[in-house]
Amino acid sequence: MRICVLGGDGYCGWATALYLSSKGHEVAIVDNFLRRQWDHELGVQTLTPIQPLAQRLAAWQELSGHAIELFVGDVTDYEFLASALESFRPSAVVHFAEQRAAPYSMIDRKHAVFTQVNNVVGTLNLLFAIREILPDCHLVKLGTMGEYGTPNIDIEEGYIKIEHNGRSDVLPFPKQPGSFYHLSKVHDSHNIAFTCKIWGLRATDLNQGVVYGTVTEECAQDEALINRFDYDDVFGTVLNRFCAQAAVGHPLTVYGKGGQTRGFLDIRDTVRCIEIACLNPANPGEFRVFNQFTEQFSVLELAHMVQAAGRQLGMRVEIDHLDSPRVEAQDHYYNAKHSKLIDLGLQPHYLSDALLDSLMNIAIRYQDRVDAAQFLPQVKWREARNQRTRRNASAAVALSEPR
Amino acid sequence: MRICVLGGDGYCGWATALYLSSKGHEVAIVDNFLRRQWDHELGVQTLTPIQPLAQRLAAWQELSGHAIELFVGDVTDYEFLASALESFRPSAVVHFAEQRAAPYSMIDRKHAVFTQVNNVVGTLNLLFAIREILPDCHLVKLGTMGEYGTPNIDIEEGYIKIEHNGRSDVLPFPKQPGSFYHLSKVHDSHNIAFTCKIWGLRATDLNQGVVYGTVTEECAQDEALINRFDYDDVFGTVLNRFCAQAAVGHPLTVYGKGGQTRGFLDIRDTVRCIEIACLNPANPGEFRVFNQFTEQFSVLELAHMVQAAGRQLGMRVEIDHLDSPRVEAQDHYYNAKHSKLIDLGLQPHYLSDALLDSLMNIAIRYQDRVDAAQFLPQVKWREARNQRTRRNASAAVALSEPR
Repeated sequence: MRICVLGGDGYCGWATALYLSSKGHEVAIVDNFLRRQWDHELGVQTLTPIQPLAQRLAAWQELSGHAIELFVGDVTDYEFLASALESFRPSAVVHFAEQRAAPYSMIDRKHAVFTQVNNVVGTLNLLFAIREILPDCHLVKLGTMGEYGTPNIDIEEGYIKIEHNGRSDVLPFPKQPGSFYHLSKVHDSHNIAFTCKIWGLRATDLNQGVVYGTVTEECAQDEALINRFDYDDVFGTVLNRFCAQAAVGHPLTVYGKGGQTRGFLDIRDTVRCIEIACLNPANPGEFRVFNQFTEQFSVLELAHMVQAAGRQLGMRVEIDHLDSPRVEAQDHYYNAKHSKLIDLGLQPHYLSDALLDSLMNIAIRYQDRVDAAQFLPQVKWREARNQRTRRNASAAVALSEPR
Repeated sequence: MRICVLGGDGYCGWATALYLSSKGHEVAIVDNFLRRQWDHELGVQTLTPIQPLAQRLAAWQELSGHAIELFVGDVTDYEFLASALESFRPSAVVHFAEQRAAPYSMIDRKHAVFTQVNNVVGTLNLLFAIREILPDCHLVKLGTMGEYGTPNIDIEEGYIKIEHNGRSDVLPFPKQPGSFYHLSKVHDSHNIAFTCKIWGLRATDLNQGVVYGTVTEECAQDEALINRFDYDDVFGTVLNRFCAQAAVGHPLTVYGKGGQTRGFLDIRDTVRCIEIACLNPANPGEFRVFNQFTEQFSVLELAHMVQAAGRQLGMRVEIDHLDSPRVEAQDHYYNAKHSKLIDLGLQPHYLSDALLDSLMNIAIRYQDRVDAAQFLPQVKWREARNQRTRRNASAAVALSEPR
């Protein structure tokens, strides 16, 4: 089928675009390279040496024989977005094109406002473009498990049946997001649900857990296709950071007690989940929600797993508990349902198998590129102004000397 | 106490500013006159001939001896907003400064995006300004009963205890808003709740019902102080429109069956609710939600009440059922709790008493200013582009001839 991947130059987007292309779908990428710009702003870079998109796409075409079409522009620019959809005419649009880092949204007011405006306006534009140009096109939207927060009851997939004063209804699951970024995804979910109702759009909201790993079958085929591996304090996800830390003998930086429990998944499952959603579209008017993760762990459990993996490789891995920069429960109930994608055929990769092959090996292979100044959290939730860029610059100088 | 009223030149804002001033509070108004601009854009005007704000404020000072301070600017401009708060240093900020009409937000993409960006960014700016300048200042935020939609269970005040799979938690009441405007208020509520949690801000979200009436004790003291009375299809509220229609012998325009049930309140209760919230502030870190309405009616019930009131005045009032321009349930369960403001001392005005004195009398007094072309709905929820301005212009020509 014809699938348009918005944000196809990013971490999940690139892996998804290649996977869909390898499966024989006609794929187009829409991207404005903002993700690469943020690396420059923060003075960080991916552990893996990723190539410019033009070279990535050329390498993929040479290797696979499949061309991926490219539209360069910003989804907050309606005329651009509409013209791209008009030109490519996809059956499904996969929307990754948002600012996706909680710490980035918490730097200060400008970053909070940017994150919410960028994400909300991009999604509103997409909803209007689908309505006006391709009303039958299926929207596959990346949400986050963080929309739910950590309620003291089981988390269902999008909706919950509530019995109250002798009556009952099935209602959207209450949302308690934990950053201005997570809030932007909650705003999106509400906006999308509304347009499914009034315009009969078909949409799937994938409330994704924390993604780990970088190696998919496609990305592994050539050095030019390698995917991002972010381990910094802003865009890095926790498991990637722990592996980078283990690789260079830096203690794993657990925030607080480490009892924070979340859903996780391998990037090889992300790409498969996206295809499953595309191949099984929501019905017209349906706002469908899947919880997209495969296992749940506490942060401390992850640290212990990385410690054990390091031991197998003869490495000594220590664990540090830092004051948490976030405002979040460090010890809480967590039980989130995630059966809908399994029911549609997802066969999960489990972390116990992937840790050595798909994470530690990458971290060790590129250990010379690790910048330890990127490990420590600099953005504090309780502050309204974090000097992320300046403090990082001086921290980098201070920390680079002892190495 | 020192109270800053954002949007103090608007319908609820003006009545509130005068009421608070009359009670001896030190009041400042922040406004950028966008509300007046929208009248020009849509080619409509308030039934009552309101005066420019400078003249309103001069008249109030002369009459009452109380000065109201004025800051002219836009709350989406952070530097302006911060300087106004820095200068006035209020104990409470009452935030009415949002685009508040559902039909306006549904005109087209630009109006939808404008409404959400304007409302969300203004509130984000205010949250950051309070955090940075006056962290103990109490935010009194105008939300809407429309955030809840029409669930098949009782609507609680902000939170609901949910029992699920043998566990329980008190969670935010699920939201099912019915327009891009109502969605913007849901976004605001989530953003405010989060900042109460991370920064310890104190906030009260007033989920207000549909307001009716224009006469408060203060506004009635002088013609120069008269408040807005909007009856047009975009900014007009339903009861005001019905009264204007009755006054000129136009059938009451009920959308669909008229079984749509909502909470309503008299503007004299709006102003009192605001003072009650200010005098009884939320605790630091508390995100408190009050449902601010006094009675619930279906639209058809309101039409029958206006019909009966007209009969008392010797007028013959007919009722028309139009195709609803909205996408909403026309026959549904509705039972919304609203005891918290009563518990704090609110003594409601009831519609049965107010209809003749505070609504019909105003409509009849200004009946020569009624423009019947403003009555009919032109913004349809199922359309992504409504030509509101152009269609209004031709409709005005067409409809003005038979009169």
